[in-house]
Amino acid sequence: MAGLKIALAQLNFTIGDFESNTAKMADVIFQAKQDKVDLVVFSELSVCGYMPDDLLDYPYFIEKCEHALEAIARACEGIAAIVGGVVRNPNKGRKLQNVACVMYNGRIQHTVAKTLLPTYDVFNESRYFQPETTSQIIEYKGVKIGIAICEDLWDVYNDFEYLVSPGQALKDLGAELIINPAASPFNLGKQSLRNRVFGGQASRFDLPVLYVNQVGTHTELMFDGSSRAINGNGEVVLQAPSFEENVSYASFENGKFAMGNSVPLDTDDTAQLYKSLVFGIGDYFNKMGFKQAILGSSGGIDSAVVQALASAALGAENVHPVLMPSMFSSDHSVSDAELLSKNLGNDTITIPIKNIYDTYLEALQPVFQGKPFNLAEENLQARSRAVLLMAISNKLGYILLNTSNKSELSVGYSTLYGDLCGALSPLGDVYKNQVYALARYINRNKEIIPNHIINKAPSAELRPGQKDADSLPDYDVLDELLKHYIEEHKGVDELITMGYDQTTVHKVVDLVNGSEYKRYQAPPILRVSTKAFGKGRIMPLVANYSSK
Amino acid sequence: MAGLKIALAQLNFTIGDFESNTAKMADVIFQAKQDKVDLVVFSELSVCGYMPDDLLDYPYFIEKCEHALEAIARACEGIAAIVGGVVRNPNKGRKLQNVACVMYNGRIQHTVAKTLLPTYDVFNESRYFQPETTSQIIEYKGVKIGIAICEDLWDVYNDFEYLVSPGQALKDLGAELIINPAASPFNLGKQSLRNRVFGGQASRFDLPVLYVNQVGTHTELMFDGSSRAINGNGEVVLQAPSFEENVSYASFENGKFAMGNSVPLDTDDTAQLYKSLVFGIGDYFNKMGFKQAILGSSGGIDSAVVQALASAALGAENVHPVLMPSMFSSDHSVSDAELLSKNLGNDTITIPIKNIYDTYLEALQPVFQGKPFNLAEENLQARSRAVLLMAISNKLGYILLNTSNKSELSVGYSTLYGDLCGALSPLGDVYKNQVYALARYINRNKEIIPNHIINKAPSAELRPGQKDADSLPDYDVLDELLKHYIEEHKGVDELITMGYDQTTVHKVVDLVNGSEYKRYQAPPILRVSTKAFGKGRIMPLVANYSSK
Repeated sequence: MAGLKIALAQLNFTIGDFESNTAKMADVIFQAKQDKVDLVVFSELSVCGYMPDDLLDYPYFIEKCEHALEAIARACEGIAAIVGGVVRNPNKGRKLQNVACVMYNGRIQHTVAKTLLPTYDVFNESRYFQPETTSQIIEYKGVKIGIAICEDLWDVYNDFEYLVSPGQALKDLGAELIINPAASPFNLGKQSLRNRVFGGQASRFDLPVLYVNQVGTHTELMFDGSSRAINGNGEVVLQAPSFEENVSYASFENGKFAMGNSVPLDTDDTAQLYKSLVFGIGDYFNKMGFKQAILGSSGGIDSAVVQALASAALGAENVHPVLMPSMFSSDHSVSDAELLSKNLGNDTITIPIKNIYDTYLEALQPVFQGKPFNLAEENLQARSRAVLLMAISNKLGYILLNTSNKSELSVGYSTLYGDLCGALSPLGDVYKNQVYALARYINRNKEIIPNHIINKAPSAELRPGQKDADSLPDYDVLDELLKHYIEEHKGVDELITMGYDQTTVHKVVDLVNGSEYKRYQAPPILRVSTKAFGKGRIMPLVANYSSK
Repeated sequence: MAGLKIALAQLNFTIGDFESNTAKMADVIFQAKQDKVDLVVFSELSVCGYMPDDLLDYPYFIEKCEHALEAIARACEGIAAIVGGVVRNPNKGRKLQNVACVMYNGRIQHTVAKTLLPTYDVFNESRYFQPETTSQIIEYKGVKIGIAICEDLWDVYNDFEYLVSPGQALKDLGAELIINPAASPFNLGKQSLRNRVFGGQASRFDLPVLYVNQVGTHTELMFDGSSRAINGNGEVVLQAPSFEENVSYASFENGKFAMGNSVPLDTDDTAQLYKSLVFGIGDYFNKMGFKQAILGSSGGIDSAVVQALASAALGAENVHPVLMPSMFSSDHSVSDAELLSKNLGNDTITIPIKNIYDTYLEALQPVFQGKPFNLAEENLQARSRAVLLMAISNKLGYILLNTSNKSELSVGYSTLYGDLCGALSPLGDVYKNQVYALARYINRNKEIIPNHIINKAPSAELRPGQKDADSLPDYDVLDELLKHYIEEHKGVDELITMGYDQTTVHKVVDLVNGSEYKRYQAPPILRVSTKAFGKGRIMPLVANYSSK
C-alpha cells in the first residue's frame, strides 16, 4: 500500500472574504509543499467560510466562490488539496451544492458533493443545497480516498437516523481512508461527542478517519478546530489544539496513521467554557473591526464575569466598565465594582442615574400620577442606564457587551431596551450556576472577582431590598428545570413526573414561554450548549401553548 | 360520475391552541352536516396552526396534535373531513410528517403526507418533516380524490424545479380532483400568482383543483385565505374572500365544479397593502391579548400612517399617540401631529424631551466634554423618546408600535433601542414610496392625514435643518435599488450595468450590509413583499462581503 503525508489545515476564515481566505490557504499550500506534504485538507466551505446563509442567494457570491476554488487549484502544482466551497448544481433540484474539490496538477480534478444536509438546530443546509445521491472514490498516489463532508459521517448520531449512510457507501466502494472536511460548532460536551462519533465510525467501517474543522467566531457560532486523525481501531493518533489556527501533519502508511503530535483536550467543562468565551469575544471583535468594549458594571456576578472575560479577550485597557448607581443600589455595589476594576486593571466611569430617573418621573408625572411604583419605574432605571451606555458607545466608539445570563433570559428577568441591550451576549447561553463556576475559575489563582460579589445574594436592585430569590426558585432548581425544558424538550407533565413541584414547573414554563418576545430582540448570543437562544431555537410569538 | 358537496373552510387558527382550533373545526363540521355537505376541507396543519416552528421539537406537542386529530375524527359521522396536522413518522428518517387526514365514519381512514417540503425564504419544513415518496388516491362517494398539500402543487413555480411532481403522480394514478390544503402566506402579487399556479396546474393535468388556505397573523406572516375552486380548464369558479374567516360550499359534479359564490380579488396593490396591514395589526393584538397601542407621533409620514392603520385596526379610542418634541423639532411637527390625531379621533399625550436630553448631557459631560455634536446626541434624542414610550407602555399596558419603514430599515437610518423599538413593525416591509401611497389611499375620501405631512420633505429632525435627502438618494431611486438588491439579489456589478450611478450603488449596498446588526434586534415585521427582513432573510453579522 502506498503512503501519504497529509496536512490538517484548521484555519480561521471570514465569511465572504474570498481574498483573505484564499490567501491564507495559498500560504499553507506553499509551506506544505516545502515540507513535502502530499495532500492538504481544509475545512468545509473553506473558500467562503461556514455559513454564508442567505448570501448564497446572490449569484455574484457563488461566482466568487467558484473563482476562488479555481484560483486555489492553480496553486496546486506538485501537491494536492481538498478545498470546500459552493458550486452551482448542474442538474435539476436546488440550485447549489456544498462540495469538496480535490485539486492537483493546477486544476480541480474531482468534485464531491455533500449527501446529508443538516437541517436542525443551528443548521439550515436544505435551505440552499441539493443533496448528492451517489458516492465516489478518489485514488491519489495509490490511496483510495473517500470524502464524507461533515454531517455525512453523522448518519446515526442525531435523534433521528438518516435513510442513507455515506460512510458505508464509501466503505462498499473500497475506500482505504475517509476524509471529513467539517464545520462543526463548539458546545460543551462536543469534543467528547466527536470522539464517540469519529471513533465509532472508524471502528464501524474499520477505516481510518481524518477530520478537519474550521476555527473562528461566526456570529453566534464558535468553531473550535480540534481536528484529528483516528485509526480504524478507533484510536485518536493526532489531536490538533482547540480555538486556534493550526496546521498539523499526519503520516498515512499501510492503511493507518502513524502517531502524531497531539494536544490533550480540555476535560473540565468550566475551563472549556472560559476558553471558548474568551476566544468568542476576541474573534467577534477582531472580525467586526472593534477594539474597545463598554459594559455596565453593577457590582453583581454577571457583569463581573463578563468584565473579566472581556479583559482577557481584549486587554484590560480596552474594557470600560461604567458604574451607574441608583437610589436603590447598595453601598457594596459600588465598592465591589470598583475593587473588581482595580483587580482587573480597567479604568471606570461613574455616572449616577438619580437625576435622569427623577427627570423622567417629572416628565411622566401627568401619566404616572397616583399610580403605585411598579415594573415601569424598575425598567426606567435599566433603560436610563442603557441610554447612557449607548451614548458613550456612540461618542467614543466602544462596543456594548450585554451581561445577561441564560437563566434570566429564559424567564424574562431582564429589561428589553435596558440590560438586554448590547452588540454581543457572552453569557446568554450560560446558566447562573455556570456563571458562578466561571467566577471561581477566574479566581483559581488569586481573588480577581471580589469574593463578596460571589457570595452575596443576587439582586437586580431596582426596588428597595429586592432579591432574585423573592420571585424565582433557587438557581439550583431553576437551572435544572430550564435545561430539561429548553435543551431536552420535556413538557410540563414530564417535569412534574420527574419530581419537580407542580407550581414551580408551571411558573417557570409560563415565564419562559411568555418572554419569547424579549428574546426576539436580544443580541447575538455565543452558543455553548446544545440549545442556545438565537438561530437554533425558532419559536412563534403569536401562539397559545402555555403549560396546560 | 358521482358528485360531492364540498365545504372550503378557511379559518383563523392560533398556533398551539388545540382546544380552540378543534372547537372551531367541530362547529364547521356540525353546520356543514346540517347543510348536507359531503366533505369539509380545512387548511394545512389546521389542528395546531401553521407554523408551530420548534414547538414541534416537544413530544407533548405532537401527542396533542395526534389527539386533536382523533377528536375531530370522532365528530365525522355522516360527513367526511380533510384535516391537517403533524404525526410521528413510523419509518426511518426525520421524526415527523406533515399530513392531511381523511376522516369519516368516526375515525381517520387515510393519512396523506406532504412530499415537497418548502425550505426557503420564510419556510423551514425540512427542519422537521420526512418527505413522502409515494402517492395515493382516496375514493370517496365514487370520486377519486388526490390530496396535494400546499407546496406539493408548486413543483415548477419556484426559482428551482423539484425532482418530482406530486400532482403528476396523482394524475397518473387516476385522480379526478386535486385538493390542496394550504398555508400560503400573503404578499403583494401573491393572489395573482396563485391564479397562475393553480390555473396552470389544473390545465396541465386537466383536473379541477380545490385550494383551502388558512387566515390569520402568525407573528411575521399574514395568511389571507382567498381559497378557491378551479376547473380543469383553469377557470376560477369559486373565490372566497381575503383576510376573513369563511366557509364556502362548492358543488362538484361530472368532473367539474359548478359556478359558486365569488368575491372579486383586490387588484390594487395599495388597497391590498392597506387591508393586509389593518388585518395584521388587529389579529396580532387580538391573539396576543393586547387591546391598546401606543406610538411616537412625530408629525412625519411614517408615524402618521401607522397611527391611521392602528386606528382602523383597533379603534381610535385604543390608539395613544405620544408627541415628544425636542429643540430640533419644527413647529409644524407638533401642529401636524395634533391635527392628525384630531382627524383620527385619538387622544394625545405630549411630553417635551428637552429636560431629559439636557439631564443626560449634564450627566455625560465628563465623557462628552469638548467633543463635537454627532450621532451620539442624535441617538440620545431617539432613545430618550423610546424610554418614555416604554415607561408609559409598562405603566398603562399599552403596546408600542414601531414606525420604521423598509427603506430606512434597509439603510440603517434608525436608532437601535430608539425608534427601532416596538412590539410590532407594521411598515418594516413597506418602502417609503409605498408609505406615501398608503397615506394617499387613507385620504382617498377625505383629508385624514394632513396634506402638509404628505408634502413636506422627510426629516428625522435630530439636528438643525436635517433632511433625509441630505444623505440619501431620492426615495424613487433608493426604493428601486433596494428592491433590486434585497428582493432580486442583484449584485453591485449588475446594478451598475443596469444604469445606476456607481457611487450611489456602493453607498446604498454598503449601508444595507452595514446595518444587519440593527435588524438583528428589530421587532417582528409584518411581511408584505417576497423578501422581508426577519425570518425569511438570514444574514451573517460576522462577515466581510462589502460591495467589492
